[in-house]
Amino acid sequence: MADLPKHVAIHEEGPREGFQIEPGPIATADKVELIEALAECGLHHIQVCSFVNPRVVPGWADAEAVCEQVKPKDGVDYTALWFNENGLNRALGFERLLTLGGSISLTASEAFTHKNLNRSHAENLAAMRKQTAAHLKHNIAVTRVGVMAAFGCNYQGDITPEQIVQTVADGMAIAAEFGCDIQKISLADTMGWATPIRIERGVAAVRERWPDIAIGLHLHDTRGLAVANAHAGLRLGVEQFDTTVGGLGGCPFAGQKGAAGNICTEELVLLCEEMGVATGVDLDRLIEVGRMAERIVGHQLPSELLRAGSLDAFRRKAA
Amino acid sequence: MADLPKHVAIHEEGPREGFQIEPGPIATADKVELIEALAECGLHHIQVCSFVNPRVVPGWADAEAVCEQVKPKDGVDYTALWFNENGLNRALGFERLLTLGGSISLTASEAFTHKNLNRSHAENLAAMRKQTAAHLKHNIAVTRVGVMAAFGCNYQGDITPEQIVQTVADGMAIAAEFGCDIQKISLADTMGWATPIRIERGVAAVRERWPDIAIGLHLHDTRGLAVANAHAGLRLGVEQFDTTVGGLGGCPFAGQKGAAGNICTEELVLLCEEMGVATGVDLDRLIEVGRMAERIVGHQLPSELLRAGSLDAFRRKAA
Repeated sequence: MADLPKHVAIHEEGPREGFQIEPGPIATADKVELIEALAECGLHHIQVCSFVNPRVVPGWADAEAVCEQVKPKDGVDYTALWFNENGLNRALGFERLLTLGGSISLTASEAFTHKNLNRSHAENLAAMRKQTAAHLKHNIAVTRVGVMAAFGCNYQGDITPEQIVQTVADGMAIAAEFGCDIQKISLADTMGWATPIRIERGVAAVRERWPDIAIGLHLHDTRGLAVANAHAGLRLGVEQFDTTVGGLGGCPFAGQKGAAGNICTEELVLLCEEMGVATGVDLDRLIEVGRMAERIVGHQLPSELLRAGSLDAFRRKAA
Repeated sequence: MADLPKHVAIHEEGPREGFQIEPGPIATADKVELIEALAECGLHHIQVCSFVNPRVVPGWADAEAVCEQVKPKDGVDYTALWFNENGLNRALGFERLLTLGGSISLTASEAFTHKNLNRSHAENLAAMRKQTAAHLKHNIAVTRVGVMAAFGCNYQGDITPEQIVQTVADGMAIAAEFGCDIQKISLADTMGWATPIRIERGVAAVRERWPDIAIGLHLHDTRGLAVANAHAGLRLGVEQFDTTVGGLGGCPFAGQKGAAGNICTEELVLLCEEMGVATGVDLDRLIEVGRMAERIVGHQLPSELLRAGSLDAFRRKAA
């Protein structure tokens, strides 16, 4: 048996990931209700919105309204996403609610950087320098390096552990240039290429180079392997995962229309709790919130657990 | 890195599991087409039907017709399921197509034995003695002991490794009584209670007691953990898995209406092949057959991979 961690931190990204991809308009009140219900499940990190161009992502035209209306719960970090100084400036209006943290976000695949951002990797590094300067100007600490497409890419194919390490190193160089203290390296399986072995090799390579920095995993269930990949991470002591309730989200990338989104929060909670890894989350309550998310988006979500129910519910009946 | 096996044997049970649970009638010709298409993917073991009471399982009223119409492909084992001598007698009519093997099938949960079979465990042992005698009378070798609800039960709760071992031992005692040479112990996670740790402990306990007998896993994805559980099995060298294309099947048990069925064949193939474990299966072709299965049943199946496509398809485009 591997050394599983004693506890994990779950970063719930369902509201942000989920509502940007739904075709229909989702009422602001529904978004707020979901966010507040998630906080009541014992989740301590909830990403509530994206400050992006409403012409590009109409689903987040109401980011400000959501931030105004959410009643914060003590002990919960509410976060938001932005990609440029304009988005950052919008987020700065909500320091009452939001915990603002800066990130240096890169992509291990040059082809994906072109497709997704219309930039070369070198241009992206320049953009991240500019963004880091903007964060520091506003007294926002930059503590995270993120790597998208860390385990493979629809446009470029396989990504090696060496390419992950090189991409992280590029981010660490920017951090060093600006004197930022990086506390977390986040590896994202953006297009669902990871397998347990790729997770093991990628995490091991990053940890060997930066043994004192925490590693987080952002996993997508595009091909049904997300829970197995999370387990591989847990076995290596990974203690932080991004998830979405019900598997909200989806995959906007080439050739994957209708594909699943992020790893389901409730399936990760089940996996962890049943193996003695504490999450702090009330699973039965979270399953109810997952069903609420299905009502809000108006269709079934990928989570199998929403239909099957928790094991504890059956244990109580059987006892 | 654990010692993964070099290859695994996949027992495709989609036709049998899938067509018994669908509410609508499925045309015999569609069943035959799916079975023949599965054989063309490189699968070497396909369970084609159930010889059960058509009043109880109307979806298999045409078991004979299916067996008559399937054109066997060289090198493929076609199998069927039956639960009593009446079913066995029906199967005996199709030795042209079917590989007939006997099994001693028990359940690790006494409560499930009552609910599912309306018998006590002791009565089930008596029934298995009778069935073993019937198999031997017809010169059908009894080579397998199966344990249902091996990792937990909706009606009884948790199942310990000791309870699994005791149930296998009960089956082995019947085998010894009749002089049967058991070559496989199959552990079924009938209601989706397994986690990677439960798989590790259960498989280890059985292997310690019967080190020379192969272990197979029959996993259900009821709560989204099937692929992680399969990976746990692979790490322990398990070389045989029951699966269903597209995740055909479902869960007829208490409180799990609409829950997922078996582990998807194509997701297990992806997991294995991407980690260097040979399956002999052409994954792109199998994904096409999964989509055919969705057309036949008339609704989306649980497999995420059917929507996302294989990695090789993207590798070819990226190259």
